[in-house]
Amino acid sequence: MEKHIELGYLLDYYGALLTQRQRALLEQSLLEDCSLAEIAEREGISRQGVRDALKRGEEQLYAWERSLGLMKRDVALLHSLSELKKLIGALPEGKEKMALDAKADELYNMIEE
Amino acid sequence: MEKHIELGYLLDYYGALLTQRQRALLEQSLLEDCSLAEIAEREGISRQGVRDALKRGEEQLYAWERSLGLMKRDVALLHSLSELKKLIGALPEGKEKMALDAKADELYNMIEE
Repeated sequence: MEKHIELGYLLDYYGALLTQRQRALLEQSLLEDCSLAEIAEREGISRQGVRDALKRGEEQLYAWERSLGLMKRDVALLHSLSELKKLIGALPEGKEKMALDAKADELYNMIEE
Repeated sequence: MEKHIELGYLLDYYGALLTQRQRALLEQSLLEDCSLAEIAEREGISRQGVRDALKRGEEQLYAWERSLGLMKRDVALLHSLSELKKLIGALPEGKEKMALDAKADELYNMIEE
């Protein structure tokens, strides 16, 4: 996975553990795709200050993923769930298949959101 | 859920985020069911010191659950999955049912472990 995208996901998983300040900086960098210069101007700090803060925040996100592995676990769950959905897809049409499909989608959405 | 049991689960979810010291104290209290006096003697600190450290650690576990809600999410996932298993249980016997059942069990174990 591309680093920027991966960090965006990790921010989704662990953002609640960051300080408000760290989260704001990382959101501007990862979600709004702002440059260091833009963030520095908005925040009234130096580019180097932004760079250091982002680096610390990113390292923290990776550290939490190494400790808790939430993203890795969800990827594995979604993989198994897509296999389950394939098995459901091969069932003969009918109410049972529809009910199973709806329940599998419900699980998928609970993990994805 | 009984508080002691709930905290044991939360320690499972978030223990990796605690300091080694905090985790050791909470494990003795929650998993080994040691008394304050026993932990105090083992650790060479006062009972009040143990009590304070446990209280801080427990509050931290609750705070992480409020932020990340991993336990609540897994409870909801296991609930949906048990409904899915009931639907599978109502299918006619055969290879398809067995394959679906095995895949649902795989998911269940991935969430439970």
